Amino acid sequence: LIGPRAKRRHVRSLTGDFPEVDEKGQEKWPRGDEKSWKAALRDIHAEVPEITKSVVTHVQTSLGRAPYNIDDFGAYQAAALSVRDNLIVNWNATQVEYTRKSPKRAYYLSLEFLMGRTLSNALLNLGLLDNYSSSLSSLGFGLEDVLVQERDAALGNGGLGRLAACYLDSSATQELPVWGYGLRYKYGIFQQLIKSDDGTQLEAPDPWLDHQNPWELPRLDVTYEVRFYGHAQRWGEESTGRATWSGGQEVLAVAYDVMIPGYGTKSTNNLRLWESKPKRGFDLQSFNAGNYERAVEASNSAACNHILGKELRLKQQYFWTAASLADMMRRFKNLEKPISEFAEYNAIQLNDTHPTLAIVELMRILLDDEELSWDSAWSIVTNTFFFTNHTVLPEALEKWSVPLMEHLLPRHMQIIFDIVTVEKKFPGDRDRLSRLSLIEEGFPKQVRMANLAVVGSKKVNGVAELHSDLVKKNLFPDFVEFYGKSKFGNVTNGITPRRWLDQCNPALSALITDTLKLDRVTAGRTVKHQNKERLALFVERQLGVKVDANAMFDVQIKRLHEYKRQTLNILGVIHRYLLIKNMTPEEREKVVKKVVFFAGKACPCMCVPFLLTIRLIVNVARVINSDLDTNKYLSLFFLPDYSVSLAEILIPASDISQHISTAGTEASGTSNMKFCLNGGLLVGTVDGANIEIAEEVGEDNVFFFGHLTPDVEDLRYQHTYHPIPVEQKCPALAHVLDTVSSGIFGGDGVYEPLLNTVRQGDFYILTDDFDAYIRSLEMVDEAYADRAEWIKKSIRTTAKMGKFSSDRAIQDYAQEYWNIESIKL
Amino acid sequence: LIGPRAKRRHVRSLTGDFPEVDEKGQEKWPRGDEKSWKAALRDIHAEVPEITKSVVTHVQTSLGRAPYNIDDFGAYQAAALSVRDNLIVNWNATQVEYTRKSPKRAYYLSLEFLMGRTLSNALLNLGLLDNYSSSLSSLGFGLEDVLVQERDAALGNGGLGRLAACYLDSSATQELPVWGYGLRYKYGIFQQLIKSDDGTQLEAPDPWLDHQNPWELPRLDVTYEVRFYGHAQRWGEESTGRATWSGGQEVLAVAYDVMIPGYGTKSTNNLRLWESKPKRGFDLQSFNAGNYERAVEASNSAACNHILGKELRLKQQYFWTAASLADMMRRFKNLEKPISEFAEYNAIQLNDTHPTLAIVELMRILLDDEELSWDSAWSIVTNTFFFTNHTVLPEALEKWSVPLMEHLLPRHMQIIFDIVTVEKKFPGDRDRLSRLSLIEEGFPKQVRMANLAVVGSKKVNGVAELHSDLVKKNLFPDFVEFYGKSKFGNVTNGITPRRWLDQCNPALSALITDTLKLDRVTAGRTVKHQNKERLALFVERQLGVKVDANAMFDVQIKRLHEYKRQTLNILGVIHRYLLIKNMTPEEREKVVKKVVFFAGKACPCMCVPFLLTIRLIVNVARVINSDLDTNKYLSLFFLPDYSVSLAEILIPASDISQHISTAGTEASGTSNMKFCLNGGLLVGTVDGANIEIAEEVGEDNVFFFGHLTPDVEDLRYQHTYHPIPVEQKCPALAHVLDTVSSGIFGGDGVYEPLLNTVRQGDFYILTDDFDAYIRSLEMVDEAYADRAEWIKKSIRTTAKMGKFSSDRAIQDYAQEYWNIESIKL
Ligand SMILES: Cc1ncc(COP(=O)(O)O)c(C=O)c1O
Ligand SMILES: Cc1ncc(COP(=O)(O)O)c(C=O)c1O
Repeated sequence: LIGPRAKRRHVRSLTGDFPEVDEKGQEKWPRGDEKSWKAALRDIHAEVPEITKSVVTHVQTSLGRAPYNIDDFGAYQAAALSVRDNLIVNWNATQVEYTRKSPKRAYYLSLEFLMGRTLSNALLNLGLLDNYSSSLSSLGFGLEDVLVQERDAALGNGGLGRLAACYLDSSATQELPVWGYGLRYKYGIFQQLIKSDDGTQLEAPDPWLDHQNPWELPRLDVTYEVRFYGHAQRWGEESTGRATWSGGQEVLAVAYDVMIPGYGTKSTNNLRLWESKPKRGFDLQSFNAGNYERAVEASNSAACNHILGKELRLKQQYFWTAASLADMMRRFKNLEKPISEFAEYNAIQLNDTHPTLAIVELMRILLDDEELSWDSAWSIVTNTFFFTNHTVLPEALEKWSVPLMEHLLPRHMQIIFDIVTVEKKFPGDRDRLSRLSLIEEGFPKQVRMANLAVVGSKKVNGVAELHSDLVKKNLFPDFVEFYGKSKFGNVTNGITPRRWLDQCNPALSALITDTLKLDRVTAGRTVKHQNKERLALFVERQLGVKVDANAMFDVQIKRLHEYKRQTLNILGVIHRYLLIKNMTPEEREKVVKKVVFFAGKACPCMCVPFLLTIRLIVNVARVINSDLDTNKYLSLFFLPDYSVSLAEILIPASDISQHISTAGTEASGTSNMKFCLNGGLLVGTVDGANIEIAEEVGEDNVFFFGHLTPDVEDLRYQHTYHPIPVEQKCPALAHVLDTVSSGIFGGDGVYEPLLNTVRQGDFYILTDDFDAYIRSLEMVDEAYADRAEWIKKSIRTTAKMGKFSSDRAIQDYAQEYWNIESIKL
Repeated sequence: LIGPRAKRRHVRSLTGDFPEVDEKGQEKWPRGDEKSWKAALRDIHAEVPEITKSVVTHVQTSLGRAPYNIDDFGAYQAAALSVRDNLIVNWNATQVEYTRKSPKRAYYLSLEFLMGRTLSNALLNLGLLDNYSSSLSSLGFGLEDVLVQERDAALGNGGLGRLAACYLDSSATQELPVWGYGLRYKYGIFQQLIKSDDGTQLEAPDPWLDHQNPWELPRLDVTYEVRFYGHAQRWGEESTGRATWSGGQEVLAVAYDVMIPGYGTKSTNNLRLWESKPKRGFDLQSFNAGNYERAVEASNSAACNHILGKELRLKQQYFWTAASLADMMRRFKNLEKPISEFAEYNAIQLNDTHPTLAIVELMRILLDDEELSWDSAWSIVTNTFFFTNHTVLPEALEKWSVPLMEHLLPRHMQIIFDIVTVEKKFPGDRDRLSRLSLIEEGFPKQVRMANLAVVGSKKVNGVAELHSDLVKKNLFPDFVEFYGKSKFGNVTNGITPRRWLDQCNPALSALITDTLKLDRVTAGRTVKHQNKERLALFVERQLGVKVDANAMFDVQIKRLHEYKRQTLNILGVIHRYLLIKNMTPEEREKVVKKVVFFAGKACPCMCVPFLLTIRLIVNVARVINSDLDTNKYLSLFFLPDYSVSLAEILIPASDISQHISTAGTEASGTSNMKFCLNGGLLVGTVDGANIEIAEEVGEDNVFFFGHLTPDVEDLRYQHTYHPIPVEQKCPALAHVLDTVSSGIFGGDGVYEPLLNTVRQGDFYILTDDFDAYIRSLEMVDEAYADRAEWIKKSIRTTAKMGKFSSDRAIQDYAQEYWNIESIKL
């Protein structure tokens, strides 16, 4: 009935099938009675009664509950399931349309997707916020109470992962055929808790899957086998470079599809996440002893390299790239085009070096399975891949030891060596390539993944103007010389205005739309104040402390990293505290009241001295928040477990935010854009996207300070070879450091290792920037005093943020890099 | 809105909540607009258009597919999900009613539930077979094709687990408030494959959860913590026997609920299965290394003790009993009755000794948590539990080493010792109890679980008349003397006629209903023939061999066990083969044509010689099926991967089936009842339920042979002390054994270890029974020659099987043991 046996698997399970067509080009009804099918098929449920019916049906069936045992969380689950049904309907229609039209597609490979909450976003994009709100209200629930029940999908660490999420939103909104590929980490990154007695960070596995996840469609029969270990045996003539890889261990990759709705369009893209699963064998004994499960930790955790262990991390990377490529290859083969046209139908974007093995894996497939010649294969590969670099910090550049690669991925190591050798074999220009060195000498030798990514890609980009320059100048100068400048570009990061304005700040969003009707300054002030009160309420509920929403809210929220200089900020807070403490009550009256917020997770693998920063913040907060002399004027909060949802509360409430990385270290930053879009001003260094933000909003609307990128090298040289004691160079800072040493924030010298990173070496030039930093904060105080002018700055800032929409960024990629076009449904 | 915080967990998740009641006793509408809710609430969907709509909705949403990528498996999934919705609606109504009425409940604790397929059974019980058939047909699918897509839930090894499943069906059908408690094994038991080259059995993990399981409702927030290891610290006065158990390791038990619909009633009971899950901690490093997962293999596998390892098996037993008791205790506490009334509201049936720890766990809760006195606690316990013994084979009686118990469950070991000591302390009668010995001396000491189960239960039963006698006489004579006979009873096993007649043999079922209208003999013959043809077709599809449906079908299907004597059967087949082979073609013409079927899994831990039986069967089959002289008259098949579904095809197709255990070894058997219910006759020993079947249908309708139970002891004594060589005792058998040794079924003496179990020692008295066995098969041949008489026997047999309905058995338990009553919805 349904065609030959061999096709069965396909018919059954994979996305993007479409009906067969008869001789006249008419689609045939596949089976059964067309009328019965059509009478039963549904479209999305958009009207209130339908919505109510579908929510209640999920209460009864999917949850197995009755009206009298549903609380807010149950209502969230039922509403989510009913929205999911709508998403799936659109998603299916989109995938069928892609298959029908077979356009060139782009694939975004990212080890992290920091999606945050989905329900509110899906309702916004589907245009169903109001109707769901009415429906839930008739069932006795408030939409807001229901939305906050959702736990974030935190499949990543920070900016890089959130960027991937914004790009998916923009791709769908612009109806571009883009899929994401990632890993379905069972335990996300970690949940951060702060030990109340000493302020240290505790890390627990993230329980995001403790309740069922309504936002994914498990596709348990979309599976691929992925091999590890074993051995590679060359065959055929040497010049073909072919081999067979066999033996070792195989695991299964199973697909979970996450629907990505566009805003105001039916277009709904796919994010396919892989879960690892044991492959069944016949060793029941060892299987029952649990060994079976142990083979496959590849998709468990999004934690960083050091925590995972190197081998597990490399396994993770290969597992994900191999499954993704196998899936793309299957989809391409369905088109029945010659393999030589692969790059005409597929663009693959590498989000940082994590997916670089995809380059080698595609070579392996083309050489060993498709039996192409080396040159044809290499030409396909180098026309398919695009590489985004995200860092210039040397310690963050990925390298894998050659012995580990040889052990885990023997065939891939062969191919990497072949890339080096083949290039060497050729005379002339190619000869140079050997200098471009994919392999770093040493014990052990290491594969430089960034270099491999450059060599194997068609284009390479950085993520902000300054950063893209540094990529060319500092990171890959030889490659620029060899390949020419045109291989290297810039795409400044962007953020999606749906989540980061409409959703997190609906009042401001409405204000912009209604701009002509209102007094902008008063209205702007009201909106900001409401957002601050929402945050104050949140903090009160979380930490049990009242917060004064009339004070200036100063926010620094991002991963804890030495280069991001949360330490500079907390030392500045202490400085301010000491000043106020020394004032007379009358003087204090004149001080601008301020509440400082921090949030951010620190990777537990990070160097121990720096880890003390959270501890310092928490303990400083304890002291100053309970100091009755000063706490009216200055208070401080560390909000645990930073997440997208927390950002959505903090960002709209900020008057000022801090982006104070050492110049030349932050590739772009995206939270800076989010704050500005929400009318918060910015204190920052001349770094990353701060520079372009200032270009857009005007220098007088940002508070810049600190040494510039070209100076940093010199300063570090001086720190090493001509060190000046901090007491001499920056007495104010020295005083702060001494105060910390004195023990008022905790004794026993616990902070000395952290303080010493500033006193000695000072790689991140805190001693050089401190005075300027304090001065810039004083300027913030002055500006804030003129509240009307401040609000104008704020509104001007919001208005000028158009450039930083991820819609623009995705258009850059689509046109300049991937060469893909929108598909209208 | 929804009451105090502390109640939240409960409101959210657990089954059996019911609405609050106002002062006038009226149920209050809990929240929202009553009209909106009521307009949206659904009942079961029973009409064809509703059914079609719900199936198609699941195709679109739950599966995310379109009409053009649905095949039979997809149709199964969608239909199953739509039936599930109906089941949940009924199930919820049932649970609410139980809570409303708060009757005494019974809990059936079984380590195995061999449920088989669910879709067909659910449709039968809901009365929706015809309407689903019409609906599917309008969508282009045949119901039969769809039903066979389902993979059995094989959460068990054999009869004991299937019995539990039949009992659940009967409880729901009779509207009795009975829940089952078991484990959700991730990999069921194992999938059996037969290696084609040498006929050995391979075992692969059972992939029953490879696709999502529509028949369960995950209740991810119904969780309990279960502790292992740690230490027990006594406190309070010594006589109280109290202690605190702390430290060690904790895991979570998570509930998965399986709906058990009754036949022709809305009543839908619950089978709650526990899955083990790690408890989150803060050791991210070891967690990421996968250690986290390794802690919890407790719910992985239903394999037997030897495979799992002793510690894991004990963990499994405790995990399951502790979670189940915690759940019952919570439910009981909701009634707000004094704890002293626990036994008035709860009866707990122990299905064999596997859940015996529940006795100790309830003592622990009552002593340590509820702080009852020892005597009050013990009195509650011994009025709550009921124990079913399933075996008299000494090697199958569970024992746990005291050091292992002390290590894994230190508090429980204390309590077991206390049970012994407390009893000893008392003078007079109780003094005797020490002879009843819960602890077996030796190195190491062992806890006798069966004895503990007897001591801690109100009543004890065997599962057939003969077996219940042996339980009293051979197993627990001291206990009978001490407690009196009335503590020991019999409940002969039963089978559910829904699955084992209506569902697997609808034609026969219809025939019984329409009995007056038809010529019974002709119709009976037709039905049997059709069933044989269905089996023949199945075998042809599976093994690619044509089977002659006009031959006599002789079936032995059950776990491979030495005591079940599949070896006797295969040796008998060889004997028949040799006879036929020696005949002239004319003589052969007179032989009754016969096809012999075997199926059954062998636990890979079983003693190696016996494991050769499968290999012998497979290799004999290869030889005789390709012997052109004889294969018209005798052929042989081993059908791999025995399961409930396979039984449902084989049983209705059998003319004769074999139940030939050594007398006194098979507790009851239930497949014997199934064959007879389906009009198959029985060759058997005077053992287990065979005896009662013969009582019902009359001795002339069964083919009995072999030595009786009282003889067996003597025969074994003779085998050891006065052995007679098999050549002398049973020349026919000796000839068969020599033929096997000669190598025609595989050389190199591979079968010698198996043959030697017969030649030497012969514990299962094959040498004593062989001649009688062959004679009884000759009588079968003779009887089969008179086909009309045979059919009459067959119809008479079916008609007399009323006693063996599990409805009768469950009524015995409900009335004589549990003291529970039906609840009408
Ligand atoms: C949860 C989360 N983490 C990290 C980031 C990136 O922050 P930044 O650009 O400041 O590094 C963002 C952006 O707002 C975010 O929402
Ligand atoms: C799958 C399965 N296993 C085991 C049994 C029990 O078989 P017996 O009573 O022959 O031991 C049955 C009963 O029919 C069954 O269906």
